[in-house]
Amino acid sequence: MRLTIAQLAERLGAELAGEPDEIGRQISGVGAVEAARETDVTFIRDAGDYGRRSGRPADARYVSGLKESQAGAVIIAGRVEGLAKPQLIVKNVDAAMIEAMKVFAPKLKAATAGIDPTAKIGQNVKIGDGAAVGANVVIDDGARIGANSIIAGGCKIGENSSLGKNCRLDGNVVVYHNCTIGNNVVIQANSTIGSTGFGYSFIDGEHKLIPHNGVVVIEDFVEIGANCCVDRAKFGETKIGAGTKTDNLVQIAHNVVTGKCCLIAAQVGIAGSCKLGDGVVLGGQVGLADNIEIGDGTIVGAQSGVNRNIAAGQQLVGSPAVEGRDALRVFGLTKRLPKMAERLKQLIKRIEKLEAAKDNKE
Amino acid sequence: MRLTIAQLAERLGAELAGEPDEIGRQISGVGAVEAARETDVTFIRDAGDYGRRSGRPADARYVSGLKESQAGAVIIAGRVEGLAKPQLIVKNVDAAMIEAMKVFAPKLKAATAGIDPTAKIGQNVKIGDGAAVGANVVIDDGARIGANSIIAGGCKIGENSSLGKNCRLDGNVVVYHNCTIGNNVVIQANSTIGSTGFGYSFIDGEHKLIPHNGVVVIEDFVEIGANCCVDRAKFGETKIGAGTKTDNLVQIAHNVVTGKCCLIAAQVGIAGSCKLGDGVVLGGQVGLADNIEIGDGTIVGAQSGVNRNIAAGQQLVGSPAVEGRDALRVFGLTKRLPKMAERLKQLIKRIEKLEAAKDNKE
Amino acid sequence: MRLTIAQLAERLGAELAGEPDEIGRQISGVGAVEAARETDVTFIRDAGDYGRRSGRPADARYVSGLKESQAGAVIIAGRVEGLAKPQLIVKNVDAAMIEAMKVFAPKLKAATAGIDPTAKIGQNVKIGDGAAVGANVVIDDGARIGANSIIAGGCKIGENSSLGKNCRLDGNVVVYHNCTIGNNVVIQANSTIGSTGFGYSFIDGEHKLIPHNGVVVIEDFVEIGANCCVDRAKFGETKIGAGTKTDNLVQIAHNVVTGKCCLIAAQVGIAGSCKLGDGVVLGGQVGLADNIEIGDGTIVGAQSGVNRNIAAGQQLVGSPAVEGRDALRVFGLTKRLPKMAERLKQLIKRIEKLEAAKDNKE
Repeated sequence: MRLTIAQLAERLGAELAGEPDEIGRQISGVGAVEAARETDVTFIRDAGDYGRRSGRPADARYVSGLKESQAGAVIIAGRVEGLAKPQLIVKNVDAAMIEAMKVFAPKLKAATAGIDPTAKIGQNVKIGDGAAVGANVVIDDGARIGANSIIAGGCKIGENSSLGKNCRLDGNVVVYHNCTIGNNVVIQANSTIGSTGFGYSFIDGEHKLIPHNGVVVIEDFVEIGANCCVDRAKFGETKIGAGTKTDNLVQIAHNVVTGKCCLIAAQVGIAGSCKLGDGVVLGGQVGLADNIEIGDGTIVGAQSGVNRNIAAGQQLVGSPAVEGRDALRVFGLTKRLPKMAERLKQLIKRIEKLEAAKDNKE
Repeated sequence: MRLTIAQLAERLGAELAGEPDEIGRQISGVGAVEAARETDVTFIRDAGDYGRRSGRPADARYVSGLKESQAGAVIIAGRVEGLAKPQLIVKNVDAAMIEAMKVFAPKLKAATAGIDPTAKIGQNVKIGDGAAVGANVVIDDGARIGANSIIAGGCKIGENSSLGKNCRLDGNVVVYHNCTIGNNVVIQANSTIGSTGFGYSFIDGEHKLIPHNGVVVIEDFVEIGANCCVDRAKFGETKIGAGTKTDNLVQIAHNVVTGKCCLIAAQVGIAGSCKLGDGVVLGGQVGLADNIEIGDGTIVGAQSGVNRNIAAGQQLVGSPAVEGRDALRVFGLTKRLPKMAERLKQLIKRIEKLEAAKDNKE
Repeated sequence: MRLTIAQLAERLGAELAGEPDEIGRQISGVGAVEAARETDVTFIRDAGDYGRRSGRPADARYVSGLKESQAGAVIIAGRVEGLAKPQLIVKNVDAAMIEAMKVFAPKLKAATAGIDPTAKIGQNVKIGDGAAVGANVVIDDGARIGANSIIAGGCKIGENSSLGKNCRLDGNVVVYHNCTIGNNVVIQANSTIGSTGFGYSFIDGEHKLIPHNGVVVIEDFVEIGANCCVDRAKFGETKIGAGTKTDNLVQIAHNVVTGKCCLIAAQVGIAGSCKLGDGVVLGGQVGLADNIEIGDGTIVGAQSGVNRNIAAGQQLVGSPAVEGRDALRVFGLTKRLPKMAERLKQLIKRIEKLEAAKDNKE
């Protein structure tokens, strides 16, 4: 796909600043400031993205590189003077950048609606209009697949589980029985939904499994990364709230309930029965102990471990996690421990001297 | 499935305390105290479960909620006076609760014994009576599947590997060649058994793989979660001891040997050639450095990192891990570091004053 | 496979020291010093292997055990006097040990060249001479598989992706569209290559996915463990440099670029856009924050978390990671914090005494 800069501006609803001979040049992709080529449009982000919510600077460091960028044009929130390339001025750079990326996305063959002849479909299965069921998919009795959902090759859908409309399950995803997946849900390759949780009772010299009669409920617009696990509940349900997104290799244990629009980075582990509010952000490799509650909008830094209830709107770091500002002071002082130890030693010597002087006088 | 409370008591071998009009009411499920409905039986746990072994209180906090619970009846170890609902009094609450959950488990279609026509079975494969081999399963030459084992769709069983009786492999599990899996073993979806371990030697400017001629041995009653990896040995065997259970996304490296009845929580990583005693408990995201030994019954807290041999019966926390009580004191003092630094500063001032006074007098 | 010790020495190009009656004995395997049987050859490692690069002693602790070893012979770099077993003296023990392990590797059936009839091959797919495509494999339109590559059962290869020669993809690997995999690459079971990365922008009350128009490039001789994830780039490419090896359950995020011959241990997480130099070593469960650079040859200890750029040749430990020597001092002092706190208390008392004495005199 190729568009002139002028056509792209129109497509994005952008105000266009640039010389007439420039805006007729062709653009065929989107690129980051430092890597964009002449045929790419680049962008200066300013929206409330994950980076910004983590409190890291976004704009300044990019603007300085913009003048040296090879990019053929830039999507930007406010006009920069003295810039020798066309500017597409928009209210929301991120929204325009996403739109541009959709325009220039690689063209892939659409999934073929219908059921591949190698798929094995159980009894009383309902498959909606326009849904695509791929090669070697197994769908057990009583399962339902909503309209226009795409089940890629090798997926397994357990008995009585249901998917809503417009979902996408990538290769080799396994969904166990009795799980409910909403509309517009994406689950990437090799993830497992509805496995039995880790609950044992030590009886007569053996760990006896506690049966998991419960289910998993995944609400609308949830996106789950590759190679993730979401365990089914012992009783009731494990629930992933609408609009929540998880990265790869995430573990969500039995009876966890997340709020809406949480962001859960790679390799996070959430132990049994945790409750997350809305908009909670967990950095990579975070661990939550079982049975704790995390309030709305709380952000937990990468590799932190949380072992107690946390109010809304907090920023935590460390294992065990403490409030971000405290953690930074403690980290700083920890590094200065050798100096503190040295100081303490010197103080003891000085006091010994003072004590000796006192004793001499007495 | 529905039973009256009286019928359920009989089924569980429980002593029943309750009014005649109450014990005829119907129960159709099991629920936690705070979430149970009128048609659920609930329970007050008292057995030696994982929670208890971690030293957390179990009974007290649940009993207080029992009076407000909507549950239609309760399974309990000792009669509570003044409780307006029937009590099923048993010696072992956990055992009775597990039994009740089996009674009320959702009814699923049994796996069909026999070999699905889409499965691909190699030469000299032996499949026991009553075993069920699902759609698109691949079983390579010389492999053996014990009686009544269930191999779900998409599993791969490598050359000469063997499974015992009554095993269950869920969707898309991959077992490499020459692995030995005992009886009554469960391996959940998307797990990998017998992959080549991470062993390289840097020769002539390249990391050369050390061949892994060894195998994996998984003993009876082991249960492995979803998306786990158990690497084969370089020489000899990687062994998971009888009755050991792992949660999801666990990494067990080459030549690891675990004892019997260990509990290994989600996202734990056990590096090469570690030896675990019997009954070792590893919390979530724990890491063990290679070649260390952990004694019987030792408990390692979540996110800890252990880099040395540990005796039996220890409780460890932290990275690097230290004995639990020490760790708590150190954690506490670490948080008080800013105060300590402040105090040190003040002390220096006071000493300077004393020194000045002394100098003045001399 | 059985060879006499003399035959094995010849095969390895080793100088042989041993009595005539000894060197005719038969060897059928390789074993570690403490576990080797009479029919095994053992070895004393001396090469620059991973263990050595981590700074751990290799030779000494093994030599002491050699005399008690049951092994029938030993591969060794220099002759040990007074050893009652044949010695195969070689320049590079690791290379000879690897060669011996290849000699004694278990014999497995070779993959059958050609396309299994149950595989589903798209349009315009090119499959090289001698390549083996297993049962239920799905290869989408325009994909290319190089000569002699082995695609095990259940793998999915996305549209327009290409594999080079002599690759091996184990069971159920998923490669998304437009990815480029070089020659002699190994990807173990259940891994996912080319999934969409974790990049969202919060717009109009929702996390909107940033499209991932980029690709994954995996260079020659890369080996990727089981259940790993390598995300595709937003723009441009995620790249794994030639000869880099990853263990299991590793997460490599969008736009990460690694150098050549890196070693990435199990459960490592590398966040978006990190750049690793050549020969970087990351221990198990390490986490790298996004957008950081790690210089050539830097070694990061297990469970560390790195949140800033690191020069070449460093050794880091801790979370946040600091230079290894500093970390050891800080860890030591952290454990001594209770003692320091006690000392501080005593100092305060001694100063109070001195101050009181001074006041009395005045």
